Amino acid sequence: MKTMNELFLHFLKDVYYAERQISKALPKMAKAAQNPQLQQAFTEHREETQHQIERLQQVFEALGKRAQGVTCEAINGLIEECEELLDEAKEPSAMRDAGLIACGQAVEHYEMARYGSLVAWAKLAGQKDVVTLLEQTLAEEKKADTLLNKLANEGINKAAKAA
Amino acid sequence: MKTMNELFLHFLKDVYYAERQISKALPKMAKAAQNPQLQQAFTEHREETQHQIERLQQVFEALGKRAQGVTCEAINGLIEECEELLDEAKEPSAMRDAGLIACGQAVEHYEMARYGSLVAWAKLAGQKDVVTLLEQTLAEEKKADTLLNKLANEGINKAAKAA
Repeated sequence: MKTMNELFLHFLKDVYYAERQISKALPKMAKAAQNPQLQQAFTEHREETQHQIERLQQVFEALGKRAQGVTCEAINGLIEECEELLDEAKEPSAMRDAGLIACGQAVEHYEMARYGSLVAWAKLAGQKDVVTLLEQTLAEEKKADTLLNKLANEGINKAAKAA
Repeated sequence: MKTMNELFLHFLKDVYYAERQISKALPKMAKAAQNPQLQQAFTEHREETQHQIERLQQVFEALGKRAQGVTCEAINGLIEECEELLDEAKEPSAMRDAGLIACGQAVEHYEMARYGSLVAWAKLAGQKDVVTLLEQTLAEEKKADTLLNKLANEGINKAAKAA
């Protein structure tokens, strides 16, 4: 790896792999959630993730490259932590929902970091179309994180404390 | 795991493990960095991390628990990605620095997510001293992320493009 284009491509493949893993994990998180709004948030973010995957495919295309993932140990670890939580808290509960929100927010933060770097590098390279695609996704990840925060603060955390 | 206290303790152990791994990784990142300001940023954040570990020990103490980590696969994955980068880009360069910044920012974002959840739960439990300790660290992680952004935007990314 010697050029910024190669660095960009490496992280693009990393996030492409990550999004596909997230897309598989979100239905399980929706199923595990007890709170209906949290179920809905995970389900809707799963649909959003499908569009994000398509956007990444468009980015690969714009660069004249084949859409391809590289194993991203960070996202594997983040998803594993979520599975561990469900292993240790076997029954649906507001407490488990609070934990699921924390896991979801860690995933959103990972994506914010990755898309933040990719946007900065695409801007630097003057690739306006790529910037537009990646910025759309970055905005969605921030919105998803804000929604999870809202669900935690507006009810789930208090319900978990009271239980 | 059935109560919010147990959930809190689980994530506290997770971030305690994470901080100790980060504390081991940062000297390697500082050594790998070519840009002197980036070297300094990693070195100073390593010192900050030592204080963050001590703060976590104070939190364990406030809860009457022994300071103890649990393996955090997410941080292991994040650090592994950084090592992979150094494997693929063997020579120090502005491009490698840009990649190191991206790795560092992913770590900061992970910590922001974790401390964000812990602060919310400690507030809920009315543990003011714990909130104060964790909020100090959360502010430091945000500041570290902002500094990395600044270093990328103010020179390293452009140097990497020009190289």
